[in-house]
Amino acid sequence: MDNINIKVLAKKLNLSTSTISRAFSGSTDINKDTRERILAFAKEHNFLPNHYAANLRDKKTRTLAVIVPEIANDFFAQAINGIEEVARKKGFYILLYRTDDVFEKEVSFVNYLNNGKVDGIIMSVSGEANDHNYLKTLAKKNIPVVFFDRVYEDIDVSKVTTNDYESSFEATEHLISTGCKRIAYLVVNKSISIGKVRMQGYADALAKHGMVFNDELVVDCSQDEKINYSIIKNALEDLKPDGIFSSVERLAVAAYYVCNDMNISIPGDLKVVSFSSLQIAPLLGLSTVTQPAYEMGIKAATLLFDELDKKGQHVFKKTHVLKSKLFVRKSSAI
Amino acid sequence: MDNINIKVLAKKLNLSTSTISRAFSGSTDINKDTRERILAFAKEHNFLPNHYAANLRDKKTRTLAVIVPEIANDFFAQAINGIEEVARKKGFYILLYRTDDVFEKEVSFVNYLNNGKVDGIIMSVSGEANDHNYLKTLAKKNIPVVFFDRVYEDIDVSKVTTNDYESSFEATEHLISTGCKRIAYLVVNKSISIGKVRMQGYADALAKHGMVFNDELVVDCSQDEKINYSIIKNALEDLKPDGIFSSVERLAVAAYYVCNDMNISIPGDLKVVSFSSLQIAPLLGLSTVTQPAYEMGIKAATLLFDELDKKGQHVFKKTHVLKSKLFVRKSSAI
Repeated sequence: MDNINIKVLAKKLNLSTSTISRAFSGSTDINKDTRERILAFAKEHNFLPNHYAANLRDKKTRTLAVIVPEIANDFFAQAINGIEEVARKKGFYILLYRTDDVFEKEVSFVNYLNNGKVDGIIMSVSGEANDHNYLKTLAKKNIPVVFFDRVYEDIDVSKVTTNDYESSFEATEHLISTGCKRIAYLVVNKSISIGKVRMQGYADALAKHGMVFNDELVVDCSQDEKINYSIIKNALEDLKPDGIFSSVERLAVAAYYVCNDMNISIPGDLKVVSFSSLQIAPLLGLSTVTQPAYEMGIKAATLLFDELDKKGQHVFKKTHVLKSKLFVRKSSAI
Repeated sequence: MDNINIKVLAKKLNLSTSTISRAFSGSTDINKDTRERILAFAKEHNFLPNHYAANLRDKKTRTLAVIVPEIANDFFAQAINGIEEVARKKGFYILLYRTDDVFEKEVSFVNYLNNGKVDGIIMSVSGEANDHNYLKTLAKKNIPVVFFDRVYEDIDVSKVTTNDYESSFEATEHLISTGCKRIAYLVVNKSISIGKVRMQGYADALAKHGMVFNDELVVDCSQDEKINYSIIKNALEDLKPDGIFSSVERLAVAAYYVCNDMNISIPGDLKVVSFSSLQIAPLLGLSTVTQPAYEMGIKAATLLFDELDKKGQHVFKKTHVLKSKLFVRKSSAI
């Protein structure tokens, strides 16, 4: 049965084509047994509905773009899983794009999407404080956008973030409570939203406990793993911190490699806490501030579909703040 | 300059529109300085060419579909990076789809792609031995497909694999050389290509060294992490292996958690080697068979673009085998 389609299916099962359509669209307006009978029959014959034809009917692409700085990263992978789960239930596919945190790549991709390639965009921005006009044209074309985790404050879209300030404050206070006197802050880009807010939490926790904020202890890293290794190695040699609060997981991983090579004991000589969604963090014994990545993806996608459902109507944009959790493990034990 | 386009750019720079086009298409048929001048000017004005318009001209989607079982996995993330690097140089975007190793999701997505959504497909298959006719219609529509890592033998497309048999043989021999007498083989699905071939390498290494292949020691796991934990815990309690050869990274990770909880010392009580592309394997001390994931992505994408360039002509399909590497670390030390 090579040329099976909804019509053939309807005939074979003695049902109307609209009933068949409802079975595939996930509509609740259909008897459960009927739905299952249709899906079982369709599955048996490797048939799944022609989304393209559906697109022409709906004038919808049934595709969402998801734009992230990295893919090989547990935080983004989990967030994508959350987005994808909501999208799949709605019958949508994901056009995934990785920016490598390079602003030009983000601009290029958004411009590409401007032409109706997708129905909506969920993105974690590359973060450069450039001209963000390329995003404004999306609104004109009725393509809703939701930011998550890394956001541009100057763009009026729904945003899903975490309580970065509070959890950075808490992580730093935790390091202070273990006796750390010289806590280094590892960051990739202090000017982007998360780097800035997390540093403020760190700085304010130091202040609360009468410790001086030392600019030298803010270790500014790069996108390049080898360079980061050198930067962190130099920082450990020159500054001799007794604690590290890392705003990004891969900088903590780099610090682990440096410590391995320099015979610095964690937590004996140096205590480490890092923002991280690394699934094997418990195996490493790494203390983490863990963001609810999966839930952030669910929330961002839900907000986007809310806007799609209200197409044309004004949607009041706001920032939804979810809570991260501090997991104290061996790397910051007393 | 909100409404900048190729025409405006050409006028501003006093160049022809075709020169501007060549600068963006990555054509070599343009003076290097001119190209750089165009790109610098375009960048300065946040302009990147309208791919949609280019598509209409070329009748190309400039999009590749990449279908993988998982995204939150270093192997696939690195392979995707390789594919993406080649695609980006050619001015192509990636429609990424995750099957969760569920055959129906694969079928659904491939059917969706059948309608000219993409110019080509690179996939690592979900592996069920079902009817693969849904893939054959792609050939009729001139949409080339390349398989990597996990392949269907019955489909005549280019394939990129690794020397799984040899490296499984080598890994098992290595465990034998450290004194292991009861080596368990952890696998998710023994019936799919990689599970089968890796088991053969394991079995033949045992045979070479006069050890009996014990079906009990083949530990068949699932897609569910919690279930895997129980399966592996039971296996370690009941079978008391002194070595583990894991065909998939996440089963080795599950084994680590079980050993942590059961106070089984690695490598003292149990030696572990696993197929893995985990970037932090050195931090865990995990001995790995590491596939050249990034290179596999490069190769697969290069083969696909070769076919796209020869569109219409017959392309002789073959399997390209790259070599994995055994890294002996602490988890299998004597």
